[in-house]
Amino acid sequence: MARIAVVGGDGIGTEVTAQARKVIDAVLPGTEYQEYDLGARLYHRTGEVLPSSVQDELAGHDAILLGAIGDPSVPPGVLERGLLLKLRFDFDQYVNLRPSKLWPGTTSPLSGVKAGEIDMVVVREGTEGLYVGAGGVLHKNTPAEIATEESLNTRHGVERVIRDAFARAQRRDRRHVTLVHKTNVLTHAGNLWSRAFAAVAAEFPEVTTEYQHIDAASMFMVSNPQRFDVVVTDNLFGDILTDIAAAVTGGIGMAASGSVNPERKYPSTFEPVHGSAPDIAGKGIADPAAAILSAALLLEHLGRLDEARRVTEAVAAEVASRAPGAPLRTAEVGDRVASAL
Amino acid sequence: MARIAVVGGDGIGTEVTAQARKVIDAVLPGTEYQEYDLGARLYHRTGEVLPSSVQDELAGHDAILLGAIGDPSVPPGVLERGLLLKLRFDFDQYVNLRPSKLWPGTTSPLSGVKAGEIDMVVVREGTEGLYVGAGGVLHKNTPAEIATEESLNTRHGVERVIRDAFARAQRRDRRHVTLVHKTNVLTHAGNLWSRAFAAVAAEFPEVTTEYQHIDAASMFMVSNPQRFDVVVTDNLFGDILTDIAAAVTGGIGMAASGSVNPERKYPSTFEPVHGSAPDIAGKGIADPAAAILSAALLLEHLGRLDEARRVTEAVAAEVASRAPGAPLRTAEVGDRVASAL
Ligand SMILES: CC(C)[C@H](C(=O)O)[C@@H](O)C(=O)O
Ligand SMILES: CC(C)[C@H](C(=O)O)[C@@H](O)C(=O)O
Repeated sequence: MARIAVVGGDGIGTEVTAQARKVIDAVLPGTEYQEYDLGARLYHRTGEVLPSSVQDELAGHDAILLGAIGDPSVPPGVLERGLLLKLRFDFDQYVNLRPSKLWPGTTSPLSGVKAGEIDMVVVREGTEGLYVGAGGVLHKNTPAEIATEESLNTRHGVERVIRDAFARAQRRDRRHVTLVHKTNVLTHAGNLWSRAFAAVAAEFPEVTTEYQHIDAASMFMVSNPQRFDVVVTDNLFGDILTDIAAAVTGGIGMAASGSVNPERKYPSTFEPVHGSAPDIAGKGIADPAAAILSAALLLEHLGRLDEARRVTEAVAAEVASRAPGAPLRTAEVGDRVASAL
Repeated sequence: MARIAVVGGDGIGTEVTAQARKVIDAVLPGTEYQEYDLGARLYHRTGEVLPSSVQDELAGHDAILLGAIGDPSVPPGVLERGLLLKLRFDFDQYVNLRPSKLWPGTTSPLSGVKAGEIDMVVVREGTEGLYVGAGGVLHKNTPAEIATEESLNTRHGVERVIRDAFARAQRRDRRHVTLVHKTNVLTHAGNLWSRAFAAVAAEFPEVTTEYQHIDAASMFMVSNPQRFDVVVTDNLFGDILTDIAAAVTGGIGMAASGSVNPERKYPSTFEPVHGSAPDIAGKGIADPAAAILSAALLLEHLGRLDEARRVTEAVAAEVASRAPGAPLRTAEVGDRVASAL
């Protein structure tokens, strides 16, 4: 029996994870859930973001289903660094997985791009780079002030995420991997990424490869997103690229993500890319599609490939069946997807 | 009499700067030019990228008109770091100016966005951040390898570019500045940028302000680029954002840029955002519009506001008059713009 920790979090987070639970129940009855109340409320009540006892309990689960974390009342970085990034680092979730697809029933802001034409997955490194928090500030609030941020990239960390990307490409139709970096400016890290990429590519002779600078890749995401199959890149570039990919596939309404520890030594976290959207929280009008698609990634990670496929198809069908402009009710979307399964 | 150093550079670079010269001559007859043969050719012949004697000569000019630098035959980073970035750093070109406009006659890949609706300028910091080249590699080619890149941000450097952005906004219709960073992850540098931004904003009570994370800003560049007026951001984020801005305004065909030292203590460099395009080099079919618009930025920088405006309008008119699908000849575009002036 799968044991899933549910962290609804802030704003619309709890509303959308409730729908994802419904859908998991429909394909995997008997799944055990444990809900954890983390986020802005806990922080304001106790000053804590992730109590170590809670972290220990999370470690005992098969996966974590997360809604959204973040509230304007909390200073920037506190919840992000203290919860989301802490889980990524402590649970060694080095594969940050972000598929982007232009689904039937959704519209790209790009003219002339048709459903089905965009179908990529960005494999973003999740435990290194500029996200490690290495840096500091000197002479604060004086004219001599300096602030630094350091990007750390290990051969170990870079090679394993690149290998994961190639393995995924190998299982896809187009079998193509694009490395995105900025080797002409970030020559030290860029060189490491390039050499690791070339070494891993040699292990996958059936996979074709390409390199793009982050600025060019960002432009191609707009001018020709169809060209991408699997993209592998570092933590910060992946953060940016996946939001552009979400935008060109019609916004973050369908953008799912997984922060994955492929070895399953630690639980992986699955969450929609969208935020807590405090402006519409509590109204029951948030679209749970991305959260349910994240649950599908969770099922896939647990080896439930057939269930994952069925959930994904049911969400796609529900979205395609929506009448344009009709008001959306969070719970009804969950009900429709669950009952279709 | 203005004295301009011309660095045509590689590929289509020399073809497009030739047109920009024509157009400057039309509005500022008697301008003196000195051509410098820098780029891949010089590098292969001598191993040098920017001989110090040449750099000294460049320093004696009022401005530098640059075509494009880069060739696949040169390892990544050599020409970029040795020439483009060296000029930005040594000539203290801390304002990297990148206007983006959807011109009549150009088509945005975004459906429903009409000419005139997108009109922004990104003020990108040009002398700090991850571009400083601080970093290194340890245990190269072993499993223990680590590569670092460090982002350096000084109060001095951040505050002056923010102040430049506010001054520009003050002169524009909408008077709005958006700060783009990633304060929730890059907390040290993000905090410095935020505090400097707040301090400068207090000096410009008529300018409204907004903050966006780089991932959200990248998404908005696609979903709602109309919302941006002046954007100020760091070196790397600016590199990425301006390429997205170029993409949504129809590609890099019209994207001009200036690497500016506002005090005019050193010469500023003006160049199209596009690269050397080796595939079409020598064919006389490269579009010189972005190079000519860069010349307009050069004229503006030299205080020739009226000439700058006329050149910009002449380019806009030429582009608007193009028959869709008709073949383009580099020299004819230059001739048409020059003779309209
Ligand atoms: C909230 C933030 C820390 C996070 C990130 O930058 O990774 C988010 O943008 C994401 O993409 O998951
Ligand atoms: C060529 C490269 C070094 C440069 C940069 O990254 O700044 C270019 O992309 C640009 O935007 O001018």
